[in-house]
Amino acid sequence: MKIAVDAMGGDNGSQVIVSAIKQFLTDFPEVEIIVFGDKNELGELSSLCQIVDAPEVVPMDAGAFEVMRMKNSSMFTALKTMKDSAFDALVSAGSTGGFLSAGTLILKWIEGVKRAAIVTSFPTRLKNKKLVVLDIGANNKNSPEELVQFAKMGRAYHQALYNSDAPKTYLLSNGAEANKGSPAGQAAYKLLKESQFPDFCGNIEAREALLGEADILVTDGYSGNVFLKSSEGVAKLMSSMVKDIFKKNLWTKLGYLHVAKGFKLMSETMDYKSTGGAMLLGVNGVLVKAHGNSDAYGFKSALNVAKTMVERQVVKKIKELVESGE
Amino acid sequence: MKIAVDAMGGDNGSQVIVSAIKQFLTDFPEVEIIVFGDKNELGELSSLCQIVDAPEVVPMDAGAFEVMRMKNSSMFTALKTMKDSAFDALVSAGSTGGFLSAGTLILKWIEGVKRAAIVTSFPTRLKNKKLVVLDIGANNKNSPEELVQFAKMGRAYHQALYNSDAPKTYLLSNGAEANKGSPAGQAAYKLLKESQFPDFCGNIEAREALLGEADILVTDGYSGNVFLKSSEGVAKLMSSMVKDIFKKNLWTKLGYLHVAKGFKLMSETMDYKSTGGAMLLGVNGVLVKAHGNSDAYGFKSALNVAKTMVERQVVKKIKELVESGE
Repeated sequence: MKIAVDAMGGDNGSQVIVSAIKQFLTDFPEVEIIVFGDKNELGELSSLCQIVDAPEVVPMDAGAFEVMRMKNSSMFTALKTMKDSAFDALVSAGSTGGFLSAGTLILKWIEGVKRAAIVTSFPTRLKNKKLVVLDIGANNKNSPEELVQFAKMGRAYHQALYNSDAPKTYLLSNGAEANKGSPAGQAAYKLLKESQFPDFCGNIEAREALLGEADILVTDGYSGNVFLKSSEGVAKLMSSMVKDIFKKNLWTKLGYLHVAKGFKLMSETMDYKSTGGAMLLGVNGVLVKAHGNSDAYGFKSALNVAKTMVERQVVKKIKELVESGE
Repeated sequence: MKIAVDAMGGDNGSQVIVSAIKQFLTDFPEVEIIVFGDKNELGELSSLCQIVDAPEVVPMDAGAFEVMRMKNSSMFTALKTMKDSAFDALVSAGSTGGFLSAGTLILKWIEGVKRAAIVTSFPTRLKNKKLVVLDIGANNKNSPEELVQFAKMGRAYHQALYNSDAPKTYLLSNGAEANKGSPAGQAAYKLLKESQFPDFCGNIEAREALLGEADILVTDGYSGNVFLKSSEGVAKLMSSMVKDIFKKNLWTKLGYLHVAKGFKLMSETMDYKSTGGAMLLGVNGVLVKAHGNSDAYGFKSALNVAKTMVERQVVKKIKELVESGE
């Protein structure tokens, strides 16, 4: 298995990524890692993996066209080499928009795929139960047929990542009834019911989706992005309120000592993208986007996701699903 | 000023509403309150206000048509009497969908209004700064022209409620750039820019909207509902995590004593609908929906909002804005 890594462009510099790769290779020495970045910063890895010198750094706000023009950037070089050398996967902590859209341009959609989708896992009220949500922002608008394909790809992803048999799929909606939802959502509901999509459970509201009953939440990219961003916004808002509460006086500061561990765990749980990152589904290859401010642990989780996706052959499964028109 | 109150249908029964009315009338004895409900439960109010016996209770999940059929219900009777007797406002803690849609059927849209919108205030990171969001769920889909009208109504509402001069209006989007947003959002952006809508500041993401810079957030009803429900979902998720943290052992339980007040304040701040409730903008009258599980304090806040809306003549202002085509 060959996994490429874009070592530049993350908020925390290349050193956390170097450290993540070292830890990952200790656990999985059989995986071959090819690192793209400034070779002066990657010396520690020289005995462990192949290093491709590509020192230019794609800015965090770069889009596809900027990436496509930066021929010496670690991101572009990694994507190009991934295609030419048929690497199995690529992990980056750089610009989300740039990585995923340039990735689409270079790797191309799987034949028959109407639109690619970004997928990520959300925490739920049940411990150890995650909610897989797609699309969280690759698209602005989606047709009913595209939503049906998202359901298929989301199912393949959930089965691969969590080794699940019968994950429950829901459509994001403004009410649980069959006649609720956006116009495209209502039409997708009918298509999924008529085709007897496996374990399709109907509509669900954003609030209920986080309770832990749902496994997969299908939505158009615009609403999915609103769902992601408002969740992040409220999580940050509440975290800052919690900090203020404990800062109040000496007693509250002392009180924090007893609960610090619990709150640390909570903020990790609520940081949607720190564990595993987001993946672009529907392209010819495994593209995993680690969170921009990943630490070594977060980036290693993204490497784990990439490895699992390759092992479980998620790209091949999506190909088969799309071809068979299942 | 005449304010009607639907005393039935809230989660906590009529007694919290009786208590809210008594407190409200102590503060504002000049306001005339007309209460609709089971007169056996409202005896305490007999010396303070007019009571109309309408004992039937609309179920929490009732829609417009159910309400329209329940002729003896407190909700239907209140709406009908409000129209016939030209009351200034009506406050209810009953079924949101039923109240707002039956309210639309009975009171009708203001002439020239394309669609009514539900508006509510969200907390932000800045203390004492609220974010006014509309539409949070009256509609499933909205045209660019409807979004422009929401901006107008939202501005009139913000100016009335917060006595503001120049509230900043933003469009909810999946990015800050002008070319981001849903297709309808992008077209609305152009219309607002071209018409030089006062204090229009462009697009904003859900996450940034909660920081406190924005005053008014305009969105279609479907995405607005996703924004509301995912915010509620995450707030509940984090609250339950906080509870678990403090329940852990004796030390953490003791620690809670020092911060209990802070956390109570936080959960009140995060309960979007407990303070002031939601209002339906665009109909001929002031319809305020208190949260289903309002306590006396929450319901009294909703009565205050209704009073302010009547005093500041928000319905008249929306009429003028729509007629002038401003």
